[in-house]
Amino acid sequence: MAEMTPTSVQELAQYSKQMLDVLEWLATYGANPEGGVTRLLYTESWLQAQRALLAKMEGLGLAANFDAVGNVYGKLQGSNASLKSVLTGSHVDTVQNGGKYDGAYGVVASLMALGYLKAVHGTPRRTIEVISLCEEEGSRFPLAYWGSGHVTGVRSYASAAGIADLEGTTLLEAMGEAGFKPANAGEHSAVRDDIGAYIEIHIEQGSVLEVKQKQIGVVTAIVGQIRMTVVVKGNSNHAGTTPMTMRRDALAGAAEMVVLTESMALEEGGPLVATVGRLDVKRGTSNVVPGEVEFTLDIRHTDERKMDAFRTRLLTKLSEIAKRRELIIETVENLHASPVAMHQGISDDIEAACATYGFGSMKLPSGAGHDAQLFGPICPSAMIFVPSRGGISHSPEEFTEPDDLIAGFQTLVHVLYQYGYGGKADEIL
Amino acid sequence: MAEMTPTSVQELAQYSKQMLDVLEWLATYGANPEGGVTRLLYTESWLQAQRALLAKMEGLGLAANFDAVGNVYGKLQGSNASLKSVLTGSHVDTVQNGGKYDGAYGVVASLMALGYLKAVHGTPRRTIEVISLCEEEGSRFPLAYWGSGHVTGVRSYASAAGIADLEGTTLLEAMGEAGFKPANAGEHSAVRDDIGAYIEIHIEQGSVLEVKQKQIGVVTAIVGQIRMTVVVKGNSNHAGTTPMTMRRDALAGAAEMVVLTESMALEEGGPLVATVGRLDVKRGTSNVVPGEVEFTLDIRHTDERKMDAFRTRLLTKLSEIAKRRELIIETVENLHASPVAMHQGISDDIEAACATYGFGSMKLPSGAGHDAQLFGPICPSAMIFVPSRGGISHSPEEFTEPDDLIAGFQTLVHVLYQYGYGGKADEIL
Repeated sequence: MAEMTPTSVQELAQYSKQMLDVLEWLATYGANPEGGVTRLLYTESWLQAQRALLAKMEGLGLAANFDAVGNVYGKLQGSNASLKSVLTGSHVDTVQNGGKYDGAYGVVASLMALGYLKAVHGTPRRTIEVISLCEEEGSRFPLAYWGSGHVTGVRSYASAAGIADLEGTTLLEAMGEAGFKPANAGEHSAVRDDIGAYIEIHIEQGSVLEVKQKQIGVVTAIVGQIRMTVVVKGNSNHAGTTPMTMRRDALAGAAEMVVLTESMALEEGGPLVATVGRLDVKRGTSNVVPGEVEFTLDIRHTDERKMDAFRTRLLTKLSEIAKRRELIIETVENLHASPVAMHQGISDDIEAACATYGFGSMKLPSGAGHDAQLFGPICPSAMIFVPSRGGISHSPEEFTEPDDLIAGFQTLVHVLYQYGYGGKADEIL
Repeated sequence: MAEMTPTSVQELAQYSKQMLDVLEWLATYGANPEGGVTRLLYTESWLQAQRALLAKMEGLGLAANFDAVGNVYGKLQGSNASLKSVLTGSHVDTVQNGGKYDGAYGVVASLMALGYLKAVHGTPRRTIEVISLCEEEGSRFPLAYWGSGHVTGVRSYASAAGIADLEGTTLLEAMGEAGFKPANAGEHSAVRDDIGAYIEIHIEQGSVLEVKQKQIGVVTAIVGQIRMTVVVKGNSNHAGTTPMTMRRDALAGAAEMVVLTESMALEEGGPLVATVGRLDVKRGTSNVVPGEVEFTLDIRHTDERKMDAFRTRLLTKLSEIAKRRELIIETVENLHASPVAMHQGISDDIEAACATYGFGSMKLPSGAGHDAQLFGPICPSAMIFVPSRGGISHSPEEFTEPDDLIAGFQTLVHVLYQYGYGGKADEIL
């Protein structure tokens, strides 16, 4: 085991091709006529996909089972039962009319990696498990990370109290109807405390890798996020009879704030991003000077201190704009999520694996949320990104080149082999 | 008649007080429980108000009649039938839940001015007529100036073809139901060619007079107006995964355009105004970089050449912003109305009348549209403004101080006396 690279190129190529096929096969579950995929938590298409994945895991010789909330595990039991598991996977649910890759790629690549390892290398020292997490997107119910939240103990049945979909079905009712009974409400029945590491492979959902022409991204951290609502109030007046100098135009003020937000974010530089995604002019009419505007502010950074400092500086500047224009500004913080660092040692091993195969790689932060941010605080965690064409995700147009999907798959296989069959992980886990 | 000032202070004061009472009385027609007034064209409250005004005119000794479309005239016949009439008035219709003053004040002040002149000064040389124009706002039907449009020949029954209210009733059906039959469709049956001058008194609907502490405004011109729709297209992207430098943010671009519109308008200075009143972010969501924004642009000026030049310069600058940001910009011009100058001679006479009574006055443009802009091209026309508290109009909160209403009334009486009983108007009309 001195070399620690997974055997023959020929067999890896064969499993790589199968991985692509399985990814297409999974996309048939919840396929929309228009080309997208919809698998919302606890719906029929979701249930069929999880059942099919469980059967697929069994077919590959893994010990497969549902947990209490609907996560599906496939276990490749290690010879040394005292070593904690390496868990790999992603989520099976999609947004409404999403793509074939978000979540699904991570589930399929992990599944086929275990299939390959078992077939070619047999029993590992350390148990390796694939997980198809039941939910990450929060698309049906306004509560994200239901799957990874249960495994890590962040979510409980109590978290879901009162949470219902647009039709009024509660999350717990839908869960029961899909066959998952919260026997002992309030208990974290799906919580695991024997996970040594979590490794997730996922599409980037951005265009950094594409622009930088890299096949693999190694995630340094999942950004923290601040979500705010900003209300700007001025005077609603007749657009014809109110001279420019007598206006208290809420939209002109808000527009200056939007422009300043962008320029301050550009000046601060990456990985900080700041976005005004929604802006509503209250009772906006072409011939009325706007009296009230509401907009959202989304600030993300891998460094919480810098994120908070930016927020403070920005809000000070926005207040100055409001004061100068005699506008009233009101801000409400709706979300404050801390960044989650990925594990440096695992990340370095992923980059080394890329070098082995000649895959161009780079480190980058994840600006989107992922299940890995739930695992990060409880065990060493890492993420591998592959490029998203045009940065598009959550859309039927989501696409990743097969070569890139394969590069990611082989990188994952390499690291899982090192960690499951070699002794390298013992230093970390 | 050397002095040409209307007699006793006492009688003028008495009619001034009556004018305030009649204004309150007219506000009972279409009064809403919440305090506003709604008199939409050809509705029951509108019809009752016009009938009551006709009766009031007859009660004051005027020869009153409806015309074919529902304008109500009250005529004070002059001794010299070869002289063209001086017409004074405004509109009786309101917006939905409007105020007591917009339009109504002009009708009532004109009506009571004729009542005073007849009672105190008897028969004039030149015929003076009050008109309660049937419609100006375009609130029920998307077609404004139906009343003054018919008198001036700008509107015909053909103009109303296909025009219907929100319930699908066409303008011509509603007109017929109210008892006004377009016997000969296509004819301008209500057109007048014997009007020598039109003088309208109206609330300012802005706050210039209030801020400048003047009781009377003399309108120099009714501004021309350009209405445009601007669409800005960029790339809709994930707010977390798209670095600031890789964005084509349609909202940030549009915001820069809004700020530039305001600063260019401020630099140009009055009477130009430019307003972005409506701005919609297409599918705006807090965590998505906006891909498309649509906003309106309203540009007004008393000088058409300067208005058009501003439009051209502004659009060039907006295109430069779009180009620099790699955004697509599309503009559509929905309206291009020329400014209408008010008559200098009449305006000077109005200012002189103000000086006679010691009413503080100033010349100013009208940024809002008025019936006078229909009369302007066919006969010497003028407008007298009184202050609007807080610049508010089209609202139950619309208010003008009684002292200011009286100042306007007395100014109007003075000018009508000079024009109807004196020879001064002969130089102009």
